[in-house]
Amino acid sequence: MPAMLLHVDSSADATADSVSRRLTARFVRAWRERHRTAEYRRRDLATTPVAPLTAAYTTLGRRVEREGFAPPAKVPALIESPAEQREWDLTLPLITELRSARTVLVGVPMYNFSVPAALKAWIDRVTFPGAFTDPDSGESLLSRTRVVAVLARGGGYGPGTPREAYDFQTPYLRAYFGNLGVTPDRLHLIAAELTRVDVLPHLAGLEHLAARSLAAAEETLTELARTI
Amino acid sequence: MPAMLLHVDSSADATADSVSRRLTARFVRAWRERHRTAEYRRRDLATTPVAPLTAAYTTLGRRVEREGFAPPAKVPALIESPAEQREWDLTLPLITELRSARTVLVGVPMYNFSVPAALKAWIDRVTFPGAFTDPDSGESLLSRTRVVAVLARGGGYGPGTPREAYDFQTPYLRAYFGNLGVTPDRLHLIAAELTRVDVLPHLAGLEHLAARSLAAAEETLTELARTI
Repeated sequence: MPAMLLHVDSSADATADSVSRRLTARFVRAWRERHRTAEYRRRDLATTPVAPLTAAYTTLGRRVEREGFAPPAKVPALIESPAEQREWDLTLPLITELRSARTVLVGVPMYNFSVPAALKAWIDRVTFPGAFTDPDSGESLLSRTRVVAVLARGGGYGPGTPREAYDFQTPYLRAYFGNLGVTPDRLHLIAAELTRVDVLPHLAGLEHLAARSLAAAEETLTELARTI
Repeated sequence: MPAMLLHVDSSADATADSVSRRLTARFVRAWRERHRTAEYRRRDLATTPVAPLTAAYTTLGRRVEREGFAPPAKVPALIESPAEQREWDLTLPLITELRSARTVLVGVPMYNFSVPAALKAWIDRVTFPGAFTDPDSGESLLSRTRVVAVLARGGGYGPGTPREAYDFQTPYLRAYFGNLGVTPDRLHLIAAELTRVDVLPHLAGLEHLAARSLAAAEETLTELARTI
């Protein structure tokens, strides 16, 4: 498989203020230094949002399930209306792109304890029935894909913190990508915590922890980009 | 507070095939029989999606946080650009609507183990800094609001099932609305499980459990609508 890197950002803040965007950019720089001729694709879910699902998407998806989770190549024969065709035209490029990537880098700020709606819109569309399963073996087509998820969260949600139970970002992405077939050793979740320490009054005094968390995330990402 | 019911649906399937929509409709019928003169508002997040956030939203939100979480009435004075004004114009009606509701009914199918992107888009926009806090007392403005979340999920994710750890729908909504200040006794989560029993081969033989779960959800909702 060629070493294609798919870079997905989901922060609504498209400026340099975005911690998740600064961190994904750092990974990309280091990775591209190592893989100079490799293909690189960028998908910015804030500037180019994924279209919301319509009823035609769920209708087509259910038909594909009834046909034993038909693979993408067999979906066109199952389309019954222009609305379904339109949904498929919006969906297939995302599927193809994800299937083609060897490494998927995802920038994920925490919004309301979970992933941004912009990222969930991508997840809800790309996760089409049968899209990531080998129709012959029944195995996942993403079992050799590496996923690097870069998480930024305003507060502290790490293990042992009082807000740990409010983290619907890390465990969610682990469950989602794991269920798609990404193996645990190829799924990297790297979090910068306490990124809103400058504005949230209840975090005052934790500046040193915020700085340490950011520095650790930067170091881990640079190291990872140089080894994978 | 007048007995306004805010009815939010988020299933992409706007047809009668949607279990969550059938269930919310059932609640509405029973509730309106009891509250004949009460105000009723409908927000369909599939047919009228909430606009994705832009950088102006996060910039304005951060400024409001820096101003000590200014309440909505003071936000206009903090707006610095037409882009921020546009974001606020998209956001304030959602805030006002949620603050005005005595009962909020939310239809939530499970998409990829979590809430649909359409609902997350509403959550990400309506949860503006300072919007649901009394600026004088610091108390939540939603402490007397009742939330009825109607969950539909294709498989079984209830306590004790093998997929319980994949439920990022029930615990997420509990954390989100709880953090907004909705009290546990006013937060009702009612789930219909195994709704995809007719299409998903690994659920074959569980039709009786699916029927029982749906009947229990219907009964709970009708009873709830008659008592609150």
